[in-house]
Amino acid sequence: VSPGEIVSAFIGRVEDGDLDGALELLADDVVYDNVPMAPIHGRDGVRAALGPFLAAATEVVWTVFRQTETGPIVMNERNDRFVLPDKTIDIAVAGVFEVHGGVITLWRDYFDLGTFQAQLAG
Amino acid sequence: VSPGEIVSAFIGRVEDGDLDGALELLADDVVYDNVPMAPIHGRDGVRAALGPFLAAATEVVWTVFRQTETGPIVMNERNDRFVLPDKTIDIAVAGVFEVHGGVITLWRDYFDLGTFQAQLAG
Repeated sequence: VSPGEIVSAFIGRVEDGDLDGALELLADDVVYDNVPMAPIHGRDGVRAALGPFLAAATEVVWTVFRQTETGPIVMNERNDRFVLPDKTIDIAVAGVFEVHGGVITLWRDYFDLGTFQAQLAG
Repeated sequence: VSPGEIVSAFIGRVEDGDLDGALELLADDVVYDNVPMAPIHGRDGVRAALGPFLAAATEVVWTVFRQTETGPIVMNERNDRFVLPDKTIDIAVAGVFEVHGGVITLWRDYFDLGTFQAQLAG
């Protein structure tokens, strides 16, 4: 299983709302870094950050437009869509992942925080 | 010359302040998309957008932390530093490039606009 396939499986499980399954593909001490915000450390931190969004969403669609892979590093360009009961949020993201020993040790997303917050508020 | 080498050469020329040389590595109808802003079309548009920054900077250092390449697509994670006479601006960026026929046809950077604007204003 290549690093790119691990990342694709992770995204698939997030889309399925399978948070436990997604977390299995992260290292215990994973670093999850939303660049304009503070980095989150550890699988439990990811659960706390992502869980409420997945629980609130009636549909989660993360569309990968491009994905590249060199050694343990995977990068992709995505649109992360969360359909919530009262609104739909679309986040244009570029992600950086490192995969070691079959699990994701680094997940860093670059995006514009203002665009995201305006959608949350709107 | 691989797509990744074209991108690396482009960044090297930007750092050298060699705007003409950098533009030679872009397609005539290149799309230059700073995601939180409007996309710019064409080599002349890139010149108009990037030229003033390069002219004002006493030093330009774009540090590439990670770069991945699959087929014609290159992605990288960078810090773009512009040392201006009165301040230094650091932009945390994830870039997506497409290279066809030895030139860059797409250059799309994901970053947080608010962080950039705060540094410009500060």
